[in-house]
Amino acid sequence: MVTLQLDSKTPGHPEAESEGIEVTTGPLGQGISNAVGLAIAEAQLRNTYNKPGYDLIDNYTYCFFGDGCMMEGISSEACSLAGHLGLGKLIAFYDSNSISIDGNIEIEFTEDVGKRLEAYGWEVLEVSDADTNVKAISDAIAAAKKSTDKPTCIKLTTTIGYGSLNEATASVHGSPLKPEDKKQLKEKWGFNPDQDFHVDQEVYDYYSKVGEAGANAEKEWNALFEKYQKEFPELGAELARRLKGELPQDWEKSLPTYTPADKAVASRKLSEIALGEIANVLPELIGGSADLTPSNLTRWKDATDFQPEKSGLGNQGGRYIRYGVREHGMGAIMNGLAAYGANIKSYGGTFLNFVSYGAPALRLAALSQIPVIWVATHDSIGLGEDGPTHQPIETLAHFRAIPNVMVWRPADGNETSAAYLKAIETKTTPSVLALTRQGLPQLEGSSVEKASKGGYTIVEAKNAKLIIVATGSEVITSIEAAKLLEAQGVPTSVVSLPDHFTFDSQSDEYKKSVLPDGVPIISVEVLATAGWSKYSHVQFGLDRFGASAPAGELFKKFEFTPEGIAKRGKQTVDFYAGKELLSPLNKPFFPIH
Amino acid sequence: MVTLQLDSKTPGHPEAESEGIEVTTGPLGQGISNAVGLAIAEAQLRNTYNKPGYDLIDNYTYCFFGDGCMMEGISSEACSLAGHLGLGKLIAFYDSNSISIDGNIEIEFTEDVGKRLEAYGWEVLEVSDADTNVKAISDAIAAAKKSTDKPTCIKLTTTIGYGSLNEATASVHGSPLKPEDKKQLKEKWGFNPDQDFHVDQEVYDYYSKVGEAGANAEKEWNALFEKYQKEFPELGAELARRLKGELPQDWEKSLPTYTPADKAVASRKLSEIALGEIANVLPELIGGSADLTPSNLTRWKDATDFQPEKSGLGNQGGRYIRYGVREHGMGAIMNGLAAYGANIKSYGGTFLNFVSYGAPALRLAALSQIPVIWVATHDSIGLGEDGPTHQPIETLAHFRAIPNVMVWRPADGNETSAAYLKAIETKTTPSVLALTRQGLPQLEGSSVEKASKGGYTIVEAKNAKLIIVATGSEVITSIEAAKLLEAQGVPTSVVSLPDHFTFDSQSDEYKKSVLPDGVPIISVEVLATAGWSKYSHVQFGLDRFGASAPAGELFKKFEFTPEGIAKRGKQTVDFYAGKELLSPLNKPFFPIH
Repeated sequence: MVTLQLDSKTPGHPEAESEGIEVTTGPLGQGISNAVGLAIAEAQLRNTYNKPGYDLIDNYTYCFFGDGCMMEGISSEACSLAGHLGLGKLIAFYDSNSISIDGNIEIEFTEDVGKRLEAYGWEVLEVSDADTNVKAISDAIAAAKKSTDKPTCIKLTTTIGYGSLNEATASVHGSPLKPEDKKQLKEKWGFNPDQDFHVDQEVYDYYSKVGEAGANAEKEWNALFEKYQKEFPELGAELARRLKGELPQDWEKSLPTYTPADKAVASRKLSEIALGEIANVLPELIGGSADLTPSNLTRWKDATDFQPEKSGLGNQGGRYIRYGVREHGMGAIMNGLAAYGANIKSYGGTFLNFVSYGAPALRLAALSQIPVIWVATHDSIGLGEDGPTHQPIETLAHFRAIPNVMVWRPADGNETSAAYLKAIETKTTPSVLALTRQGLPQLEGSSVEKASKGGYTIVEAKNAKLIIVATGSEVITSIEAAKLLEAQGVPTSVVSLPDHFTFDSQSDEYKKSVLPDGVPIISVEVLATAGWSKYSHVQFGLDRFGASAPAGELFKKFEFTPEGIAKRGKQTVDFYAGKELLSPLNKPFFPIH
Repeated sequence: MVTLQLDSKTPGHPEAESEGIEVTTGPLGQGISNAVGLAIAEAQLRNTYNKPGYDLIDNYTYCFFGDGCMMEGISSEACSLAGHLGLGKLIAFYDSNSISIDGNIEIEFTEDVGKRLEAYGWEVLEVSDADTNVKAISDAIAAAKKSTDKPTCIKLTTTIGYGSLNEATASVHGSPLKPEDKKQLKEKWGFNPDQDFHVDQEVYDYYSKVGEAGANAEKEWNALFEKYQKEFPELGAELARRLKGELPQDWEKSLPTYTPADKAVASRKLSEIALGEIANVLPELIGGSADLTPSNLTRWKDATDFQPEKSGLGNQGGRYIRYGVREHGMGAIMNGLAAYGANIKSYGGTFLNFVSYGAPALRLAALSQIPVIWVATHDSIGLGEDGPTHQPIETLAHFRAIPNVMVWRPADGNETSAAYLKAIETKTTPSVLALTRQGLPQLEGSSVEKASKGGYTIVEAKNAKLIIVATGSEVITSIEAAKLLEAQGVPTSVVSLPDHFTFDSQSDEYKKSVLPDGVPIISVEVLATAGWSKYSHVQFGLDRFGASAPAGELFKKFEFTPEGIAKRGKQTVDFYAGKELLSPLNKPFFPIH
């Protein structure tokens, strides 16, 4: 029996590391939701670049899903949106074999999937003998292509493990076939049972022809695109650049910068300003919000909604997506959008606390190296009266613990621009931008360049006896605390560390210049403390739930004030007085990365 | 204008801390899913305890939901299951006002909700003039009660902010009415506009009568129950005990215990054994799995499925729920089950990595102090060939960072029993039990009592120069490593720390006896390291994604072997040699708890 090996070309589930695979799948419901993103991308590009006689973008999006996918809520979110958006070129096959891990789905899943999809606005076709009737499947695909304003589901009634002695059972899903079963199965389908991993010459020949046809089609497409570039030089150059995966030259100059003379602004508003500027220079920017547009401030002025033409609410060239209250679906759709190619930079907004609803999609972006952007506002207890259900506590600790995720919590305008700079530039890493609802002053000593390192010393005290390392809204409070400590004879430096991931990627020398040996370091962030010991000796944070009250009152209650921080700073200095202290960066070894 | 205050009786969203509120809500889709749990609880108890003439349990479950709830995937999961289960006494009102935060839902949500619910197996009734037609609503409720084998949705077409100058807009949802609007509104409905917070005597009188009627009904019920206890002494005593929220005396003696002579067993199997024993003595145990029963091993022998009678697959007195692939819905349904009362102990199984799909419901259990149990198997890279999509990395760091959650990762049979002991005993804290797929030996020195402290010294070395603190499958590997280190002249103690939350609640004295000053401490857990600095100076963990390969190969690849741990142990001892070292428990101050 052949068992799976490390670094196999055919791992347990399709993995993006393998050539030709854009998105790592496996977790149920993600694939159909990615497909919705891929179909939106196709429609958006088609309506942006195609011209009469130039059908440059014209693919269908095909997807397979099963009963398990339909049980997962994420598929409900994505399919409902696909129906609303009228994604006519999305064709999804429902492999309806009625078997899941627990057995026949009669025990847990007896809904009418077709009717449910029709309720979402889909067209549903059925092939009841799909084990064998290839012609009927082919006909259904042809019919599906005629449906231009509705996504189509082709329900295939099938037998799992068809032909195996274990057909129509759950066991045939997870366990390899026994030798005698494999033997009878091969005989049944006309194969030589004594040959393993054998492919007939006839198949090689056929696929070689398929390859040739593909190569020819590519050649034709390239010729068409060359002609297009001559006739439409601006659009042509833009699409050519995008297909190379390059950003426009000097695009980053569009990012706003600030000086301390500029007024205090909430970082969600700073994000809105940045998005407005970026949107002008990056046609590949496609974003939206999970029904929190006026709170997330994710829609730039003059944005056009991506909507069916007939709705009168936008068009299919629009770049702003009304995701509805569908965070998980949004996450997987963003992944699909970015995976389509053409340099698409996709972002989606929600409250930071509700990124958690979509975290499994964020995780898959990290695993598949898909650089999407979550615009996550209302980033702490400072969110107003929604109360502890809406106040993130464990959230940043959670996202920072996922490998390959940037988690930005900018302290002012320059840091917000730095976050967008890094989030747009990366080709491999998704980002979460944690943004405030309350105003933040523009800090002395911040800059896009410095913040782009992920962490830097924003207040440098001579002969510092203490370093405070903080993020976001706590940076200004820490700077105020440092002044109080200075007055008490404790020279205190302040480090702003907006993104752990980016800081980690700096040189050891740089990192140790920011967090040196010999000085006690206290971290300050009004969220859970887990993860902060990488950069500090002692942590001031919130390892409890928040409460319902105005922001100012809550910060006071929990002592995230200059006085509350200074008090703990002093305790820290006294505690470590006379003790030899290594930088938290100084370790005998590091975890596996 | 009155603004919300800290510790208000009417916080931003209903909070479980307020009297009469069982579940903190606010996050969309959780409420309808909680309601499904409440309705299952009612049906299960009704079919367990009611006798002819004794309708002790006979309530309807009412619920309100809106467009936002229906957009969230969790509601799809819960409503599909409710339809399958035929929860005829669940009556949900759909407040269909067509407004969400982004505006009119025509921009994002145009599906046919009624048709979708019918596809799930619901009955759908409509009241098209529900702003004013109270009679029609009342009639619809009466009709809904006649539907005995289907849940009912009563769709109420309404106007948000009806009567306000801002009616039918998004703004009326989030912002208080302006004074002139409040004035005209009060006048319109016949109130005195100059009176604030005024309740008419007529209303007081009416509700006083309602109160009396309730008190009488309770009296009657108590009399009926007294009679029942005489006629059915066993069932009566059982229900009386449960209503008091007490566990049966000596129930914990049913928990299995082990000695090193017992064979090595996967902790998912140890969990199955424990569940089988507990199920016999705790009729309040109601559990299930999200379609992973044969993998999670959550179904005890002779369990009856909770199913509609007509299905022939179980009955409505059954205590095992086939949740389907619906982790998020399962989480919220578990919360509803436990919130029903009658001491219900509800658990649900899935892979540890897919608890993340349901984490927002776990978070609400923690916030609402609802003691549900997540049985989370396949707890590390040691899960076989499913690959990195199924291998938890950040998962335990995430759950440990949520306030008020026990996160057990037992190392053997006694520790598994300790996890169940604490998870069943608590009345306020949800648990996640992280369990292995691979076998674990029964450890020398473990016991239910010791493990119940959350952490304890399992190998005590004389004059220890190093302490290894580990959980789950890494405890035995650490014990082997300690032997290697001992042979190299490094006496090494090993601490098993199956649950941080429980360990944190022990006395300082006890905790410092386990993790004393002066000895370097290394933590070992084959998952993300965030959070471990609370108990160690240096962390050996996996801050990257896993890979597709057999368990043994992966543990070797990442050096989670006795040799790999011993090597790092030695590095740690050398690194800290001659340095004064404080226990990680020794801090100048602690985060806000």
